[in-house]
Amino acid sequence: MAKLLDDVVGEFSRLPGIGRRTALRLAMHLLRMEEHDVELMSRAILRFRTDIRYCSCCNNLSDSDKCEICSDPTRDHSLVCVVEQVKDVLSIEQTRQYNGVYHVLGGVISPMQGIGPSDLKIDLLLDRIARGEVQEVVLALSTTVEGETTSFYIARRIHEYGNVKLTSIARGIGFGDELDYADELTIAHALHNRRPL
Amino acid sequence: MAKLLDDVVGEFSRLPGIGRRTALRLAMHLLRMEEHDVELMSRAILRFRTDIRYCSCCNNLSDSDKCEICSDPTRDHSLVCVVEQVKDVLSIEQTRQYNGVYHVLGGVISPMQGIGPSDLKIDLLLDRIARGEVQEVVLALSTTVEGETTSFYIARRIHEYGNVKLTSIARGIGFGDELDYADELTIAHALHNRRPL
Repeated sequence: MAKLLDDVVGEFSRLPGIGRRTALRLAMHLLRMEEHDVELMSRAILRFRTDIRYCSCCNNLSDSDKCEICSDPTRDHSLVCVVEQVKDVLSIEQTRQYNGVYHVLGGVISPMQGIGPSDLKIDLLLDRIARGEVQEVVLALSTTVEGETTSFYIARRIHEYGNVKLTSIARGIGFGDELDYADELTIAHALHNRRPL
Repeated sequence: MAKLLDDVVGEFSRLPGIGRRTALRLAMHLLRMEEHDVELMSRAILRFRTDIRYCSCCNNLSDSDKCEICSDPTRDHSLVCVVEQVKDVLSIEQTRQYNGVYHVLGGVISPMQGIGPSDLKIDLLLDRIARGEVQEVVLALSTTVEGETTSFYIARRIHEYGNVKLTSIARGIGFGDELDYADELTIAHALHNRRPL
């Protein structure tokens, strides 16, 4: 195999979920692209890795010291939604229903994977609360054992600050989901938290 | 979304089979990679596009004017296997059973897609035959209508040269395949071409 081809197939194969067969298909696609476009792709990959920063306020990915959301004066900075990952921010933003700000933990507490509270950006969150501008913290972590543990830990730490309202996103049957396929815990929770029409 | 992130997600999304969700996952993976490794990846992608060449003899991808296989004196240059694509060369090479050389057409005749004989490297193959060193041509194209048409066309053109042996790879039931799942044409062909044990 030509070395140049072998190199690019090897590099694509390093990415998660991409085996050698897919990597070869991607490489062949590069040949059908304009050289200029491949240059843009190559540069975007490197620049993302070298220049991207973490927002000093919320730990979201950012082009500068403070992310777009934290820098936006039209957003409600007294309402902070705590999420695990950057992609959770994107998911919530896509709804266009949330006008508060975020706090990206960077994971959840997982003793199995050796991730403790100090590995997450919890202190950064407490610093924000200590500065006094936060009035409500919405926890939007996974409903896994690790997510619940993390929610519980954060709730306990936040309670030390006294006057911050603490909420969690609603759990229930998703729109378009069938009751038939929902697990018992979700159904029980959805019934318990029923709302008037 | 940070512009640097948006850029890299957009670029990954241009690749076939990669949607925005997967692109985001790949981007996040870049952050977990060493900066040096991302640099190697970025460079391999661009260099492949700018520096790869097509072998002047067989049209395979190559680092230089002539590919490794065509430059290899230990290979049998009188035996040429005609394939559609570069990946077919890799598939055959992986068997380590073939010691001849190749000829990569770059596709098959497909009136539906507007691909005629002149869009394929058929003349390059005929040039090789005209130079007189080819004794046998093995056709290893797909058994699709387009593949068969192309095989037929090439066979006719080659016959004009008279003294070149023309063969096709064997069709039959693959190892590990069940008779139950094979189509009638394959079974009929496999029976007709039965071999003594």
